[in-house]
Amino acid sequence: MMNQKTKVPIRGRLGILTPGMGAVSTTFMAGVLATRAGWGRPIGSLTQMGSIKTEEGEKQISDLVPLAKLEDIVFGGWDIFSDNAYEAASRAQVLDQRLLDKLKDELSAIRPMSAVFSSRYVRNISGPNIKTGSTLMDLAEQLIDDIHQFKHQHQCERLVMIWCASTEAYLEPSDVHKSLEAFEKGLCEDDASIAPSQIYAYAAIRCGVAFANGAPNLTCDIPALLALANEKGVPISGKDFKTGQTLMKTIVAPGLKARALGVNGWFSTNILGNRDGAVLDDPANFKSKEVSKGNVLEGIFNAQQQPELYSDLYHKIRINYYPPRGDDKESWDNIDIFGWLGYPMQIKINFLCKDSILAAPIAMDLALFSDLAQRCHMSGIQEWLSFYYKAPQTIAGTHPQHDLFKQLTLLESTLLEISKTYAV
Amino acid sequence: MMNQKTKVPIRGRLGILTPGMGAVSTTFMAGVLATRAGWGRPIGSLTQMGSIKTEEGEKQISDLVPLAKLEDIVFGGWDIFSDNAYEAASRAQVLDQRLLDKLKDELSAIRPMSAVFSSRYVRNISGPNIKTGSTLMDLAEQLIDDIHQFKHQHQCERLVMIWCASTEAYLEPSDVHKSLEAFEKGLCEDDASIAPSQIYAYAAIRCGVAFANGAPNLTCDIPALLALANEKGVPISGKDFKTGQTLMKTIVAPGLKARALGVNGWFSTNILGNRDGAVLDDPANFKSKEVSKGNVLEGIFNAQQQPELYSDLYHKIRINYYPPRGDDKESWDNIDIFGWLGYPMQIKINFLCKDSILAAPIAMDLALFSDLAQRCHMSGIQEWLSFYYKAPQTIAGTHPQHDLFKQLTLLESTLLEISKTYAV
Amino acid sequence: MMNQKTKVPIRGRLGILTPGMGAVSTTFMAGVLATRAGWGRPIGSLTQMGSIKTEEGEKQISDLVPLAKLEDIVFGGWDIFSDNAYEAASRAQVLDQRLLDKLKDELSAIRPMSAVFSSRYVRNISGPNIKTGSTLMDLAEQLIDDIHQFKHQHQCERLVMIWCASTEAYLEPSDVHKSLEAFEKGLCEDDASIAPSQIYAYAAIRCGVAFANGAPNLTCDIPALLALANEKGVPISGKDFKTGQTLMKTIVAPGLKARALGVNGWFSTNILGNRDGAVLDDPANFKSKEVSKGNVLEGIFNAQQQPELYSDLYHKIRINYYPPRGDDKESWDNIDIFGWLGYPMQIKINFLCKDSILAAPIAMDLALFSDLAQRCHMSGIQEWLSFYYKAPQTIAGTHPQHDLFKQLTLLESTLLEISKTYAV
Amino acid sequence: MMNQKTKVPIRGRLGILTPGMGAVSTTFMAGVLATRAGWGRPIGSLTQMGSIKTEEGEKQISDLVPLAKLEDIVFGGWDIFSDNAYEAASRAQVLDQRLLDKLKDELSAIRPMSAVFSSRYVRNISGPNIKTGSTLMDLAEQLIDDIHQFKHQHQCERLVMIWCASTEAYLEPSDVHKSLEAFEKGLCEDDASIAPSQIYAYAAIRCGVAFANGAPNLTCDIPALLALANEKGVPISGKDFKTGQTLMKTIVAPGLKARALGVNGWFSTNILGNRDGAVLDDPANFKSKEVSKGNVLEGIFNAQQQPELYSDLYHKIRINYYPPRGDDKESWDNIDIFGWLGYPMQIKINFLCKDSILAAPIAMDLALFSDLAQRCHMSGIQEWLSFYYKAPQTIAGTHPQHDLFKQLTLLESTLLEISKTYAV
Repeated sequence: MMNQKTKVPIRGRLGILTPGMGAVSTTFMAGVLATRAGWGRPIGSLTQMGSIKTEEGEKQISDLVPLAKLEDIVFGGWDIFSDNAYEAASRAQVLDQRLLDKLKDELSAIRPMSAVFSSRYVRNISGPNIKTGSTLMDLAEQLIDDIHQFKHQHQCERLVMIWCASTEAYLEPSDVHKSLEAFEKGLCEDDASIAPSQIYAYAAIRCGVAFANGAPNLTCDIPALLALANEKGVPISGKDFKTGQTLMKTIVAPGLKARALGVNGWFSTNILGNRDGAVLDDPANFKSKEVSKGNVLEGIFNAQQQPELYSDLYHKIRINYYPPRGDDKESWDNIDIFGWLGYPMQIKINFLCKDSILAAPIAMDLALFSDLAQRCHMSGIQEWLSFYYKAPQTIAGTHPQHDLFKQLTLLESTLLEISKTYAV
Repeated sequence: MMNQKTKVPIRGRLGILTPGMGAVSTTFMAGVLATRAGWGRPIGSLTQMGSIKTEEGEKQISDLVPLAKLEDIVFGGWDIFSDNAYEAASRAQVLDQRLLDKLKDELSAIRPMSAVFSSRYVRNISGPNIKTGSTLMDLAEQLIDDIHQFKHQHQCERLVMIWCASTEAYLEPSDVHKSLEAFEKGLCEDDASIAPSQIYAYAAIRCGVAFANGAPNLTCDIPALLALANEKGVPISGKDFKTGQTLMKTIVAPGLKARALGVNGWFSTNILGNRDGAVLDDPANFKSKEVSKGNVLEGIFNAQQQPELYSDLYHKIRINYYPPRGDDKESWDNIDIFGWLGYPMQIKINFLCKDSILAAPIAMDLALFSDLAQRCHMSGIQEWLSFYYKAPQTIAGTHPQHDLFKQLTLLESTLLEISKTYAV
Repeated sequence: MMNQKTKVPIRGRLGILTPGMGAVSTTFMAGVLATRAGWGRPIGSLTQMGSIKTEEGEKQISDLVPLAKLEDIVFGGWDIFSDNAYEAASRAQVLDQRLLDKLKDELSAIRPMSAVFSSRYVRNISGPNIKTGSTLMDLAEQLIDDIHQFKHQHQCERLVMIWCASTEAYLEPSDVHKSLEAFEKGLCEDDASIAPSQIYAYAAIRCGVAFANGAPNLTCDIPALLALANEKGVPISGKDFKTGQTLMKTIVAPGLKARALGVNGWFSTNILGNRDGAVLDDPANFKSKEVSKGNVLEGIFNAQQQPELYSDLYHKIRINYYPPRGDDKESWDNIDIFGWLGYPMQIKINFLCKDSILAAPIAMDLALFSDLAQRCHMSGIQEWLSFYYKAPQTIAGTHPQHDLFKQLTLLESTLLEISKTYAV
Repeated sequence: MMNQKTKVPIRGRLGILTPGMGAVSTTFMAGVLATRAGWGRPIGSLTQMGSIKTEEGEKQISDLVPLAKLEDIVFGGWDIFSDNAYEAASRAQVLDQRLLDKLKDELSAIRPMSAVFSSRYVRNISGPNIKTGSTLMDLAEQLIDDIHQFKHQHQCERLVMIWCASTEAYLEPSDVHKSLEAFEKGLCEDDASIAPSQIYAYAAIRCGVAFANGAPNLTCDIPALLALANEKGVPISGKDFKTGQTLMKTIVAPGLKARALGVNGWFSTNILGNRDGAVLDDPANFKSKEVSKGNVLEGIFNAQQQPELYSDLYHKIRINYYPPRGDDKESWDNIDIFGWLGYPMQIKINFLCKDSILAAPIAMDLALFSDLAQRCHMSGIQEWLSFYYKAPQTIAGTHPQHDLFKQLTLLESTLLEISKTYAV
């Protein structure tokens, strides 16, 4: 059947645009450049290093489905600070300065476009490189111009947008989010319920650019933008890169459940000191994160099905801004479990991780998989990318899958399915 | 198609025989009795509390396949000490004495038959309740008599045997293990390469009794006993109940691999103070355990496939006899991982568990599933029970599956398959 | 010089009165009764088990200074719930129920007097056993009556009062606290700035009863009550029993400082589920605790003296109500230190403790040492008891000593001093 | 009284000689050079940064007693490898390569003299830069020549020697160690019971050079060398720099004892990957370390005095060679304690430290304090330096002090005493 496969054209450059040019996105950018130069390996990225079991044996994912090549990637971004990617990466102190120095020319050339920003949504930081406009719609149009100019200037064939900026204040969906009409009206009338990230997502989707949301903001998880995505044939996904603590949680919880071990307490605390930590020190922004992180266990344990094991689960999450650590985020989990005849046991997990090191390969994969999806005519919510998110966006009324291993199965089966139709 | 299903007769009593009546088996026994009396729940046991997703929705395993009922179970065992199950359970200090006191009559009635024992295989403990015989074959015949008498005396329909005794000294397979003829000749000639656990396994299989091996001993993982099992239509499985640290390892390692995170170090230490700890304080016995625990990561990470991520993995396991803890085993793991561009991160896992509390439900499930397998005419190695073992016994030349989630998938699909043919 | 010593009369009963009959005080009471009966040892108590190096060699403290005997102790208390000490101890689930059952008669006889309570100061719990009165002074007089009646009824020679009740909401000292006149006027006029614990302390001191404050409330740490204590010749001390995390902090911090190791971050989190945890879940009450716990490091490290090592220290404390744990409080500390040339290192301390088990011997020692002080005519603030407190009360304008080892030196030298004058 | 003080001449250079030019000594050397250049601070060193409370207030130690200045220090050393200090420091990977590069000229000039080495005492490593000689005495004479030449070549006024080389195999004192005569006879007759470190110590002391022993080897802790030291007026001290885990132990144990908390188990494990780890992977060398680390708790808790609290203490130490870590040594301690009525609690301490970063300031202080002692005519065993050692050398028949706070008190009082006589 091999000859029936469609050759999906992947000629031309892929532009990756990131709202936010902070620790995560500059680590991502520098890593791609370093990998191209042979100075590092893109570890943690399935598109670059992962393999899948196929009928013909284990195969590299990049040999299975037609992904954009690293050589064809160009980066752009927006930020409220005007530091270029070299300056921003140096300030972030994630990567070794000697590596950044070797990449200085390329990174310095990536200069942030001015950002759409609202202190209503992010209070604890502010910066000078901000767009002004008569209305929110005016700001959206400015972003659309940015996108067009970037595409033209860098001669891109295709674009994707990955939200790598700060967590916004918690936002409940309201009427303005319910239909495209209401949303566009809201943009024109400066509706306070429209967050900056939603203006970016709107601009991207209107331009036919796939959108992936790395933060817990509501953003494109609203009927208005889903409708637009379906109309424009654009893949969207979210929310919130699944990096440290939640990653561990969605690994360990399925294991406990597999063994029918009961859980009656799960206390999760985090210390982190980067800009992300500063933003989350505001209760409104923490609320977004808390909601994003909070449903994971419930989704995995399904207490309705096994009330004797999981209905008494007390789950508490704390995030603490702790400047001594910088980007070296650290989590400590205490898990109270019980076994045979109800006897209690405890698990403690201390994860000393680096936020941006874990997030960068996720941004990488989401960029390439979103682009793949678009070329394969898969529009709207990409549930098969749930693997990468703390709070996977799903079709209204369905529950997200949080179990990492079931998410992986879905990701792999989707890739195998694509590989049947589209040749590398 | 329901009417095409075979009704598998599960009338009559199931006798569960345990070589070893120490902490694990008495916790198992007391738990079954307590559950029958409504004084506790058999948490951690899939046969009692687990559910599976079927086409008709989530279903309790016990509603899906025809398992023996708790009411129909009778217990028997062998031990080198002559304490009855009440005395042994009290000494083990795993369960609350008040619960044991409520079960005193029933537990006291379970008295150990005299054991086959060799100080060559277990040096650090010894006891008075030991069989003597002219040859190893004579000892085997005595065990066969024990089995027949137990079955008759307790009017059992069927029997299974679960090895719950100490870890024996490490044993390399040798010529005497290679064929049934050689093995039986060795029994008659007192071959020193035949371990006590192999005499039990031989006796069980000859009597048509399914055998499951909860310790890392070689036991039935030899051609001689596999041949006998196939000839007699007896299911066998092993080795080594997957309880604390290795359980966590086979949960966490697949998660790291799923994300293509590299691992270059995994240090695992354990402190435990029960009889198991005393036995493992002997290097020869520790060797058995080390081999059993040691292959788990290699099997999951498959460094050949992903050498950049896993070929430098340094894996070290230490087990420390530490009397202050008794049965409250504790493990501490330090995992050195690396991500994007090779940046190092660390995970520490401290598992404060109770050995017997984790082992008892495994013994429960293996007893009922082994019995199920036998009634369903599945003989020889039961790879679908790999889920319960640190070092799953496989057909010669094939690699065991260590990934807990893939083991679960195999267990579930086997149960679904059985359910298509055999009605509850 | 032995013959010059004064024999301090310790004939007669010592009544120990505790506002609060919850986990801490009932654990204390039951422990004294159990020790008297030979069913347990008062571990953690220096008065019962401690020794001091003297010129004649190591000596038991109880052989050095004239302490009240356990046989001469009688207990009384106040609580907002009407459970007797047996019921309250059973509900607290700290001690083994079998032990409590053996002490049932004695414990049941200790019935709480009705409490002075104000929901303004403790919002998260409430109870039925509460005094009403026309003014705060009226409530004070009722407490004074309680004290007199108790003393008479139980034929006590002497009394001490140990505050073992909940943490009150944070209170800044104000004018009403500045002089005895203002305070008594405030009592008569129901000044909202007078907390219930201050009414107890006032009543105690007016009756000549030594007062020790086990919670972080302001209580007797005000000029008004200090003046009264000096006038009446009454020893007072506080604040906040130094039990788990802060105990470890005042052990570890002096060690780091001894070695001139720098510290730039100390993150302390706690999970606890008892009534104490519920009360501290209210930010106003947590504020009291935070202030009490917060000055410890600053006091020990003295950044003014060594700014290169300690001036950048970021210290953050979180207390989390976590019901699965009950009284089994647990702390996790992450300490970021730096050494030679500024290289960073980390220490993590996880303390799985039992709040009341650590607090009970402190209550024991404070009761006996406060009584000793009073018999030795030491009135006012007892700085030598700083050893037992998170936030030692000191004379206005002086800094408390937080270093556990310097506190111990002060305690021991005071006892040696006493022993020179007063014979056992 | 200031005018009665002796001015101790500290004109001229101090040569610091280290047998071993590995991670510890090169970190020490580079740190001194970096501090001189203003590129770092000698954190962790009391001679450089510590202060003491005097009658005139807190004073810097360097203002209190007459210490050699950093500007006057010159370094020399011996090693079995011929790497110079720049190469050795680079290979050790402790300090940032950029710092080492700035110090390249100075470090490269420090070239190792050829070492006295015996594979009998260190089996797991070997190197090319080794002295040969007709007898052990011949080797000693060669070392003496090295010392004289170094002193002359670098125009040193005074010298000290700090053993910074590997741990040698365990050695019981025997007849050859009992007198200087026997020892010198043994040197001439190649007695196998004389370890290389003893030849260094002999050479140093014969030259009037103070000797401090940073490893757990027996070395100068024998009557023969003590006699020689007293004869020559040379200060000696040892054994084994107290760096990570044992440092924490001697901080925490006194705190538990201060509170009369019982301890029934202390499990200590270590993972380390540097050359030190490789050497300790040999059981004979580990034995030296185990003995050195093992007496610490016993010494602090003094079970004879408080048997109810400490007589059941089970103390177990494991050291694991774990290459992924390099110099980033890590310890994990589990401490089982018990309180009021015997209730158990647990403390876990995970110390992520850097071996050489903790050892370098100790080498610094021992060099300057040994030199100070010699100028102040304090010869023989320097017990006041116990503060820096895991197994302090004491006068025969007396017990070492292990409590860090009592060690500090002794150190401080000795310095105060010196300051009364000798002016800065």
